Amino acid sequence: MPVLFAHLLPTLLEDADLSNSTCVVIDILRASTTMVHALGNGARAVIPCLNVDDAHAAADKFPASARLLGGERHGQLIPGFDLDNSPLHYGPEVVSGKTVIFTTTNGTKALWSCRTAAEVIVGAFVNRKAVCQALKRSGRDVHLICAGTDGQLTAEDILFAGSIVQLLVDQPGSNWIAGSVQTRMAGDYFAARGADPAVFRKTFFDSLGAQNLLELGMEADIERCMQPDLFDCVPHWNASTGELTIR
Amino acid sequence: MPVLFAHLLPTLLEDADLSNSTCVVIDILRASTTMVHALGNGARAVIPCLNVDDAHAAADKFPASARLLGGERHGQLIPGFDLDNSPLHYGPEVVSGKTVIFTTTNGTKALWSCRTAAEVIVGAFVNRKAVCQALKRSGRDVHLICAGTDGQLTAEDILFAGSIVQLLVDQPGSNWIAGSVQTRMAGDYFAARGADPAVFRKTFFDSLGAQNLLELGMEADIERCMQPDLFDCVPHWNASTGELTIR
Repeated sequence: MPVLFAHLLPTLLEDADLSNSTCVVIDILRASTTMVHALGNGARAVIPCLNVDDAHAAADKFPASARLLGGERHGQLIPGFDLDNSPLHYGPEVVSGKTVIFTTTNGTKALWSCRTAAEVIVGAFVNRKAVCQALKRSGRDVHLICAGTDGQLTAEDILFAGSIVQLLVDQPGSNWIAGSVQTRMAGDYFAARGADPAVFRKTFFDSLGAQNLLELGMEADIERCMQPDLFDCVPHWNASTGELTIR
Repeated sequence: MPVLFAHLLPTLLEDADLSNSTCVVIDILRASTTMVHALGNGARAVIPCLNVDDAHAAADKFPASARLLGGERHGQLIPGFDLDNSPLHYGPEVVSGKTVIFTTTNGTKALWSCRTAAEVIVGAFVNRKAVCQALKRSGRDVHLICAGTDGQLTAEDILFAGSIVQLLVDQPGSNWIAGSVQTRMAGDYFAARGADPAVFRKTFFDSLGAQNLLELGMEADIERCMQPDLFDCVPHWNASTGELTIR
């Protein structure tokens, strides 16, 4: 029976052996949502980089016409970059066919924290159904990695992880097992605060991640990141090439 | 309005400023339960020490007839110590009038993690009501520090923290505020798994801490640590003298 683990922060991975597992990287506001937008809207690949220097080095390997530099520091456009971290700026007319070199504060770190996994995918509300289907198909144990905000737990990531617990474990006849207290807590949190749309919305907007964005006037981004199932695609990360693509 | 924070592990204190707060140290299985037993049963003081050498050094300051060495490593009696970490071994006939020098793996570390707080107290199910009354009286912000088991979250500590969230925040007319996602999660976890006695019992026994004790045949200890309100006392820690006493 497959086991589902939720980790409320990358630092709470607790030395888990990921080698036979699928990891789902979760940074709802906004890195995972934006990466799904990029690939769902036709980008060839996204290359997540830990820092700005790495991003420039990666960009130098592509002709200027074939790549875009995207990401954020402190929620805002990085000087010299083409795109910030708003999913609304990664439309098909911008990203189609391009390679997006991408660096953000929390999401990229979360991705690297599970580089030893058999499979690493990116999950967000905007591709949740596709993620669940992929996890059910694979049959592997699953680790949900919440990126958090500046080292702190943040509600929007945990709501998403909790919704996956509900969709996989807490279903009649499910053969999935919740693997830890963190997993149960995420599920209970979503059951208490995710089921009613008004409570979900308030919890999402009250989150640390959303409050940071509201201060920057980015309410439209928050709205977009809450939308379920806008894309029927699952970004897979190849730790060797460093590329996220849709298989 | 006072704010209540729960921290699922000492490492999740997130650089909180504790200087105007009361910290409640929670290591249900078994350090906080045992320390409450010692003081509730008439010990003069408990002196928590981070390691065995410190415990011996502290013991040397007392006549042999006036002190007891207690604690555990890997759940068991430390060679040369008088007492292990079972609350059942700290009866009045054993501890009355004595100073107990005490060292355990997780609980003592949790205590030291909040040494900058205005007030540090020890909480367990066996003195829960007295702890709640003390917190309400003080009016300070409160940080609940779950000790965890070997760096991992463990259910019994979080059940206790969640029960305090319920008793302080989730009451009609309460003026307490839940200060973080961790606080809400602990409360939701207790609401889902603490309200029904059979579910509470199963969650408690399935915990990491309980499973470790069951392997050592210590089921009676687990039973004791689940009992509410056996003692009407609150151990206070004086970080300068290193002594836990009842005021």
